Amino acid sequence: MPECGQKDKGGGKPVGQYLEAHLSFCSGRDYGPYMLIARHLREGSIRVASVVDDELVDLDTDHDDLPQLLAAGVTLEELALGARTALSDAHLLAPVGAPPAILAVGLNYRAHAEEGGREVPTTPVIFTKHHNCIIGPGAGIHIPTIAPEKVDYEGELAIVIGKRCRHVPRDRAREVIAGYTVMNDVSVRDWQRASPTMLMGKSWDTHGPMGPWVATSDSIDPHNLQLTTRVNGEIRQDSNTDDLIFDCFDIVHHLSSAFTLEAGTVIATGTPAGVGLYWDPPKMLVEGDEVSITIEGIGTLTNPVISEPDTQLL
Amino acid sequence: MPECGQKDKGGGKPVGQYLEAHLSFCSGRDYGPYMLIARHLREGSIRVASVVDDELVDLDTDHDDLPQLLAAGVTLEELALGARTALSDAHLLAPVGAPPAILAVGLNYRAHAEEGGREVPTTPVIFTKHHNCIIGPGAGIHIPTIAPEKVDYEGELAIVIGKRCRHVPRDRAREVIAGYTVMNDVSVRDWQRASPTMLMGKSWDTHGPMGPWVATSDSIDPHNLQLTTRVNGEIRQDSNTDDLIFDCFDIVHHLSSAFTLEAGTVIATGTPAGVGLYWDPPKMLVEGDEVSITIEGIGTLTNPVISEPDTQLL
Repeated sequence: MPECGQKDKGGGKPVGQYLEAHLSFCSGRDYGPYMLIARHLREGSIRVASVVDDELVDLDTDHDDLPQLLAAGVTLEELALGARTALSDAHLLAPVGAPPAILAVGLNYRAHAEEGGREVPTTPVIFTKHHNCIIGPGAGIHIPTIAPEKVDYEGELAIVIGKRCRHVPRDRAREVIAGYTVMNDVSVRDWQRASPTMLMGKSWDTHGPMGPWVATSDSIDPHNLQLTTRVNGEIRQDSNTDDLIFDCFDIVHHLSSAFTLEAGTVIATGTPAGVGLYWDPPKMLVEGDEVSITIEGIGTLTNPVISEPDTQLL
Repeated sequence: MPECGQKDKGGGKPVGQYLEAHLSFCSGRDYGPYMLIARHLREGSIRVASVVDDELVDLDTDHDDLPQLLAAGVTLEELALGARTALSDAHLLAPVGAPPAILAVGLNYRAHAEEGGREVPTTPVIFTKHHNCIIGPGAGIHIPTIAPEKVDYEGELAIVIGKRCRHVPRDRAREVIAGYTVMNDVSVRDWQRASPTMLMGKSWDTHGPMGPWVATSDSIDPHNLQLTTRVNGEIRQDSNTDDLIFDCFDIVHHLSSAFTLEAGTVIATGTPAGVGLYWDPPKMLVEGDEVSITIEGIGTLTNPVISEPDTQLL
């Protein structure tokens, strides 16, 4: 094994095992023995890259988004490594830029269902977020001009589907999951509550921050991860994915019972207790806030909150 | 003006005015003075075509789906005409194969809200249908193996968005609508009712039949169209879009207040009274049924109902 800090320049040899061991052995950050796949903007081009120590190492692929790359069926670990970018200089993008669908689960942590005075669901409550909601790390969450009073954060573990699938048995769900990332299911509570279907409060442009990258699923246990949401450094949500009512495998089984999931589909699995609405008094997001969501073993997604610029488009 | 039946071979001259007049003057079917845009499979390729009399006339474009064609900003009427296919021989596909999103409005006809014992909504009830639900005319609607008892039809007028837009004032909504088509918002009632968000009962594979084509919006009045659903020839729904609670322009304004709509987005506007569930006794769909939905001025969408084949995919 190369020493820590020694750079591998790729060159066609299988790097999977090396990379895994290298990550596990060398990284000062506790990322565990799995790949982290990021997207970033380098010299005007979008690149898919692996996170190695404090650098992004571009994968040798022409695909600039995960749905196509995953659908191509390549083993990510085997893609030769390309150009390197210091993480401190990187312009990270959402790890999945254009998912075929963004599905989400409501009321999926016991304590969150209870804080809202709702009954704990006996079947998953599924809604979607509109495709245009996705933003990457560091991008601004809009306070909508016409609905500024009830904007809220929801820190969530999100599943990234790795291959086209239907009717996936619960005990084989792991086979179709490419990895996990962090999502902020930003919610406009007054619009959410105006209709039982929730969607119109969940889908505003910029209200789907995602990142900082995808942790591949080979080794991660998605059901024992601490999830912490901070606003301006203050802890607002601090829970563990072991409190999920329907876990990741239940969700994939349930969704795929009804319809085909494509590679790159993102599924936000629900948020734990501590959303702004249920603090007393409520702590809604306002311009100037900064929201950071950390999931153990994956990373931290941070976004500023800004006022909505002029977004009319006709 | 050429005589009826005279074939225009295209060749670069502007055909818009000719085509409009020709359609209005010649067609034995009452399609009105607007273009009908279809997609079909010809010699293994997907083509976008105009419906002229009893033929499909391919448009001169390399795009094989409406979202990209509409986003390109071309004037459809000005695309030269290409190869012709007799409608009787045509293999029609859904006019929009891969919409950026499929949005839908629930409980949007007064009489339908009332037949279900629901309050008439004061804000649009929005949900989505999953992208994989779309099928074209003639394709089979699956009776799900694991949920066969409560499959229902819903005849609906659907909007096709013509350009990227956000914050569209109601009185300018017409500018961003490319046209209208017919959709069957097939619903699995037991799954729909298991959750307030409806989605899981609305999104099964094959449960979004669409077609037979898109009537462009220039001349059509979407709010005075008779809508008739027949099952095996028996009239089940017979209403008019003038009974819509939130009309097409309200819906576009409402949705675009929250998020950007892309060209090719499909919005099913809701179904009138007469769904199978509320007949006494209920008349749910079973294998062997045939559902036909006719919207005045647009056309008729017909699909058989079949048992779900083996669709497991891993």
